[in-house]
Amino acid sequence: MSRPPGRKQENHKISRELFVLTYGALVAQLCKDYEKDEDVNTCLDRMGYGIGIRLIDDFLARSAVKKCRSYSETADMIAQVAFKMYLGVTPSVSCSSAAGNEFSLILDKNPLVDFVEELPAERASLCYCNLLCGVIRGALEMVHLAAEVTFLQDRLKGDAVTEIGITFLRKAEDRKHKR
Amino acid sequence: MSRPPGRKQENHKISRELFVLTYGALVAQLCKDYEKDEDVNTCLDRMGYGIGIRLIDDFLARSAVKKCRSYSETADMIAQVAFKMYLGVTPSVSCSSAAGNEFSLILDKNPLVDFVEELPAERASLCYCNLLCGVIRGALEMVHLAAEVTFLQDRLKGDAVTEIGITFLRKAEDRKHKR
Repeated sequence: MSRPPGRKQENHKISRELFVLTYGALVAQLCKDYEKDEDVNTCLDRMGYGIGIRLIDDFLARSAVKKCRSYSETADMIAQVAFKMYLGVTPSVSCSSAAGNEFSLILDKNPLVDFVEELPAERASLCYCNLLCGVIRGALEMVHLAAEVTFLQDRLKGDAVTEIGITFLRKAEDRKHKR
Repeated sequence: MSRPPGRKQENHKISRELFVLTYGALVAQLCKDYEKDEDVNTCLDRMGYGIGIRLIDDFLARSAVKKCRSYSETADMIAQVAFKMYLGVTPSVSCSSAAGNEFSLILDKNPLVDFVEELPAERASLCYCNLLCGVIRGALEMVHLAAEVTFLQDRLKGDAVTEIGITFLRKAEDRKHKR
């Protein structure tokens, strides 16, 4: 991965733990604010969206990646460059539809839940890491890709892995003016 | 700084921007929740405290530092090891009392406000980064050091630098049983 000259990598690197605990404080606050898990999930997704639309500039500048030519390439970019850069992990990617517009990011280990044992019984529908879905959705939208992003499996809920599903929405793609 | 063998540094390193934006979302949420800046500040400090009392174990394990023998050494440790590890910056330290229990951490650049232009006019009393004060206070308490930690200057409020004041409370020190 190339970087703009003169910009020190070390300036951008921090230890993950403070972030993970701060994220936990954010989720805890939202759980105080909203009784329903669905409302917390929606709020996290919306916050993530706001972050994604700002983070994309940083990502494009620092990763110096070229335009992706396919959904598949885009999914790989999210997993191998973006996740690596921002969370220090690299999910595996699989395409889950014949149409070629649905992908799964599989996380054997989810760094965001490092300090979380399990969800409280009364919060069984909470998508603890839903912020990530919003971040991906927001960032994709800024490069003119509409997508639905949701958690399909979650180790916090007893699943074997954590799986984020990304469905690229072709109709939005077709609406673009730049073609 | 030494590390326990077999633990990969890269697993702990992430890019700062996602953290900074997530922290911004947390502060924004608290500003929605609480009308008064003082209440937001208190909440951030309390959240930070909860983070600090958990983060200290991670810090001690990963930094492998020895017990500090003076307040001065402790302040240097916070600035040179903890800030560097968790935020990627190293504040300068100055002792600001003849009694030797008051220190200032001076940040020329505060990474937490990377994406913040300025505080909104109606939030003039907000200590945007007050979480940090709570983190330091909580972490110190876990090593049996009572301290008051507050922002003394803040570039977000027009000051030339950002300055965090740490006052070690001797009376609490004297109360310790371990002597």
